[in-house]
Amino acid sequence: MPSNLPNNIPDIVIGRLPIYLRALNRLAQEGHEVTSSHELGQRLGISSAQIRKDLSHFGGFGKQGTGYQISYLQEKLSAVLKVNREWEVALVGAGDLGSALAHYRGFADRGFRIVCIFDNAPNKIGKKIGEFTIQPIEDISKAIAERGIKIAMVAVPAEHAQAVAELLIAAGVKAILNYAPISLYVPDDVRVQYIDPVVHMQRMTYYLPDK
Amino acid sequence: MPSNLPNNIPDIVIGRLPIYLRALNRLAQEGHEVTSSHELGQRLGISSAQIRKDLSHFGGFGKQGTGYQISYLQEKLSAVLKVNREWEVALVGAGDLGSALAHYRGFADRGFRIVCIFDNAPNKIGKKIGEFTIQPIEDISKAIAERGIKIAMVAVPAEHAQAVAELLIAAGVKAILNYAPISLYVPDDVRVQYIDPVVHMQRMTYYLPDK
Repeated sequence: MPSNLPNNIPDIVIGRLPIYLRALNRLAQEGHEVTSSHELGQRLGISSAQIRKDLSHFGGFGKQGTGYQISYLQEKLSAVLKVNREWEVALVGAGDLGSALAHYRGFADRGFRIVCIFDNAPNKIGKKIGEFTIQPIEDISKAIAERGIKIAMVAVPAEHAQAVAELLIAAGVKAILNYAPISLYVPDDVRVQYIDPVVHMQRMTYYLPDK
Repeated sequence: MPSNLPNNIPDIVIGRLPIYLRALNRLAQEGHEVTSSHELGQRLGISSAQIRKDLSHFGGFGKQGTGYQISYLQEKLSAVLKVNREWEVALVGAGDLGSALAHYRGFADRGFRIVCIFDNAPNKIGKKIGEFTIQPIEDISKAIAERGIKIAMVAVPAEHAQAVAELLIAAGVKAILNYAPISLYVPDDVRVQYIDPVVHMQRMTYYLPDK
């Protein structure tokens, strides 16, 4: 399916597909087999019309009136997002956040597996987090190139994030999930997503009553 | 200033202001005193026209050709976002992620301070994370109502997130940063932002080469 996908899907639509997939996984866990754009919309706070429109970019996946077969839609969305496979992920930074990410059990069944962890602190290198031995930053290029890793998570202090990103990109990484609270400069063929809790909270305080 | 703000600012514009503020903080740290929509745009991968348009919602903050005084713009954006004060934040969940959040030093100078931490595990309650003593979930209502806390971070397993959100909302919380990989049902006057690393990564894999 990925080979004959339409090319001009707006990025904002792509951004909603993981949310739909997560909701479908949840529905399946709860024992549902069929859902509707109405039910999905209610769960997600998105209009059912929006959901139908988003899915119509890929052919629609459902028949008017009969709803969506959850397992079929999960399969199709996973294929569109290319997470019907397992991506190996490199993690840079073995501090509190890096450790939490290394222990997080929510990656595996959603398309990702952390396979190596790097840090530059001499007292961390060689130690284990779960099943992983923390490797020195200097090993990034070799480890990533050897395994052909395309995705990395950066959980280092802001002042090191750009340098780490450049090492990763030089080694072949094309997608970075950046936890450092700083914007990265990357080439056009590299994608970055940001996770910064403060940005999300500042976005909400605007709407709070003043006192 | 917040009292006479325009009311009809699109949410997507509000969503970009924290990014601008973060970039300005960074420029100030680097010793800059003046910037331009061009420079900001380059740093953020956003067009300078978009930045000027976004800021024009609030009066513009700069003169054509002379750029922006960074400290002035920081002050104004902080006021718009209501982070020219410190919001007390409740954290629910003292696992790996909760601990990382409790230790995170990036909140204080950006408008937020965690002031209490809750968990339901008997072996955690009463223990300390940094300066905080972990309190039992049952204390949420009293602790939050007493302090008038409006913002909470939820870092509990998905199956507990909705119940925790309802406790928080009943106690007066109006903004939730949800780390649990599940959509929450909340009343119209409560805002939720989501942090789910998998959603961000799935959004990037779509664009990766297949092999």
